Amino acid sequence: MRTINVGLLGFGTIGTGVVKIFQQNHQLLSQRVGAELKLTQIVDLDITTDRGIAVDKGLLSTDVQSMLTSPEIDIVIELIGGYEPARSFVLQAIRNGKHIVTANKALLALHGDEILPAAEQAGVDVLYEAAVGGGIPAITAIKENLAANRITSVLGILNGTCNYILTRMAEEQASFSAVLADAQKQGYAEADPTFDIEGVDTAHKLALLCSLCFGTHIEFEQIFTEGISKITALDIEFAREFGYKLKLLAIGKHNGDMIEARVHPTMVPENYPLAKIDGVFNAIRLFGDFVGPTMLTGFGAGMDATASAVMGDVVSIARNIQAGIGSRIPPLGCPMSELAQYSVKPMEELVTPYYLRFTAKDQPGVLAQISGILGKHNISIESMIQPHRHEAEAVPIVLMTHDALERDVRNALSEIDELDIIQQESLMIRIEENLD
Amino acid sequence: MRTINVGLLGFGTIGTGVVKIFQQNHQLLSQRVGAELKLTQIVDLDITTDRGIAVDKGLLSTDVQSMLTSPEIDIVIELIGGYEPARSFVLQAIRNGKHIVTANKALLALHGDEILPAAEQAGVDVLYEAAVGGGIPAITAIKENLAANRITSVLGILNGTCNYILTRMAEEQASFSAVLADAQKQGYAEADPTFDIEGVDTAHKLALLCSLCFGTHIEFEQIFTEGISKITALDIEFAREFGYKLKLLAIGKHNGDMIEARVHPTMVPENYPLAKIDGVFNAIRLFGDFVGPTMLTGFGAGMDATASAVMGDVVSIARNIQAGIGSRIPPLGCPMSELAQYSVKPMEELVTPYYLRFTAKDQPGVLAQISGILGKHNISIESMIQPHRHEAEAVPIVLMTHDALERDVRNALSEIDELDIIQQESLMIRIEENLD
Repeated sequence: MRTINVGLLGFGTIGTGVVKIFQQNHQLLSQRVGAELKLTQIVDLDITTDRGIAVDKGLLSTDVQSMLTSPEIDIVIELIGGYEPARSFVLQAIRNGKHIVTANKALLALHGDEILPAAEQAGVDVLYEAAVGGGIPAITAIKENLAANRITSVLGILNGTCNYILTRMAEEQASFSAVLADAQKQGYAEADPTFDIEGVDTAHKLALLCSLCFGTHIEFEQIFTEGISKITALDIEFAREFGYKLKLLAIGKHNGDMIEARVHPTMVPENYPLAKIDGVFNAIRLFGDFVGPTMLTGFGAGMDATASAVMGDVVSIARNIQAGIGSRIPPLGCPMSELAQYSVKPMEELVTPYYLRFTAKDQPGVLAQISGILGKHNISIESMIQPHRHEAEAVPIVLMTHDALERDVRNALSEIDELDIIQQESLMIRIEENLD
Repeated sequence: MRTINVGLLGFGTIGTGVVKIFQQNHQLLSQRVGAELKLTQIVDLDITTDRGIAVDKGLLSTDVQSMLTSPEIDIVIELIGGYEPARSFVLQAIRNGKHIVTANKALLALHGDEILPAAEQAGVDVLYEAAVGGGIPAITAIKENLAANRITSVLGILNGTCNYILTRMAEEQASFSAVLADAQKQGYAEADPTFDIEGVDTAHKLALLCSLCFGTHIEFEQIFTEGISKITALDIEFAREFGYKLKLLAIGKHNGDMIEARVHPTMVPENYPLAKIDGVFNAIRLFGDFVGPTMLTGFGAGMDATASAVMGDVVSIARNIQAGIGSRIPPLGCPMSELAQYSVKPMEELVTPYYLRFTAKDQPGVLAQISGILGKHNISIESMIQPHRHEAEAVPIVLMTHDALERDVRNALSEIDELDIIQQESLMIRIEENLD
């Protein structure tokens, strides 16, 4: 039985999960690959901290060059995260003919245009199932099972931290900051949660999904990104009164030569499947011209689920090696040269219903002023709640609009926020009604 | 660009969907394969009926041998269904070095032990994503993404007809026979619905899932199979009162050297993800030792969704051919020679809570007699409903038990059904509480 050698670059949480799988399911892996799958080297700057598992000291090294230049290593698992030095290491490994498995969405979303062509040229694989949706097999499903479909939309709940926070805010009618603080205490949110709560992590993942689903190259910078930090428990409660749930949604749509790619808090009808995904779970809903709607759910993060996805990719590459071939499917599903060029729809041109929350002085005529400005900007109101009088001077006024142009909504809000009666910046949340 | 030739055997509903995909997404397919993917021949006994799509007459033939022996054909799509002549045709095609794509779960569940080794020997692929869960990418997910996991359980709602009937019975409090009749009228149930409603179709699919998930060979005959025809709207209503939903569940579990493989109406807690899958949707929930729970949902049947799955497999094989290799992954995920031998747990040894419905004379002492017999058989009662007095003499008595041994339950029910006070055969429905 031949041996396929794997190098692990980055011995953090997920790396520890990978080592656990090698140890615990070693025989199973070799059986399924038809070759001995061997963890040959682990490189990290820190090789002394106890990770809670027993590791042969001979595997550990701080010398990354010994791995990247080793003629022995067939597959490099990159789990160091971030842009640099991950980018340089991955490019070097590719040039040296090594296949790459990575969970690094930031790297691919920003440097995919450099890394993926390099891999194609070198005839090696870059697999990244773990980069999107953790244990959810979406990338493979898109590349393989849906390959006969023109995918018209991809929607996702892709960040467990945000979904956990929004779920708890809804359940406990608690404030964003209180839930975030508790989530940090419990390990569901990072000490610096910016990437998660501001939607950056979700946008990284959406860039990959859009590129793959639509056969194009979408840059991270092209994605409109708005996080959840301005959401209040009141908004979630109002959403429920209107029959919606509030989710941080990644939305990719393809229509003609135009792509929509946006990440923002979104109200979705409460009976829509994605609305039912709560807590740390992730979900990806795909719509293909033949398959119709398909939804995949699972743990979007966590040591073991992510390590499972990483190792699924390792097995896939190992089977290719065992079959005597290099890359079998290009990283984006079709050759780089055949990727299409699409425009990304400017956010100002979005047409969708909106939820608008104003905070105004509690005095007669307020609604007339607000609705007058909205009408002037071609925004018509579907329903309105002026929920309960606060003891303070300011009261919330909540409106749901019919379909409106985002540019008009922004202009109207700017104008309204200039009014003396408005006590704080108004909030808008986009509503998705036509989700497929 | 080289050409990969595909033969379609069976021009029924799904076959028509396949032809539509070839026509509508032809360029996309070739782009994703890196070769021209060509539908070269369509064989069916009936080549005159109008399928609602324009087909080049030169493609159509009634001569199956011309396809099976053609040196030109690389991939045969088998969509004739049933056991014979599908079995003979598939075996002949394999011997002639052709790859097979099939949606025929009955064929594989009964003759997989003949077909799969033949394919392994010939070095060709037999792919069957469309045989389980229609458009849901479960087979690939198990083979590829979860390959690093020991899968400990697979649960599925695998038959759209049954799920549609149960959903409508619940929504309309309608009888099984009334909903079935209407489902037949609307095309959601076959004229002869036996295979669907008696759980046979679900059991065929579970046989494949168990074999693949657990790396073994489970025969269809080893699967305990009970359908939904005895379920009444009353049972569904009682289930709801106890906090459960009623689903026809396929249940596969692996524990040590023992496999559980069973199909029966099952009460699942209403907040459990599978409980929320309604109508014609299918769902498959997998639990792996690292990935944790993963659930895949989508259309389980239908022309287009199934054709999408078939064509996903065709693309997969075409990519292998393009890469210059035969089969890359054995049909059951590991070589046939390495499949494990497990015992299937006899149904009498199942331990689970039960829902029991008795129909008894409306007279004092009835409950005492029933509970006395249950107690004698070591069955303890968790809760009881004696819902409302009927005008007729017979009243329903509904019990939920604690964990009990199926053998005991069966013996107790036989004894109870002998009592004079019992007016019709008692019903038991198994409850699943520990679903992962």
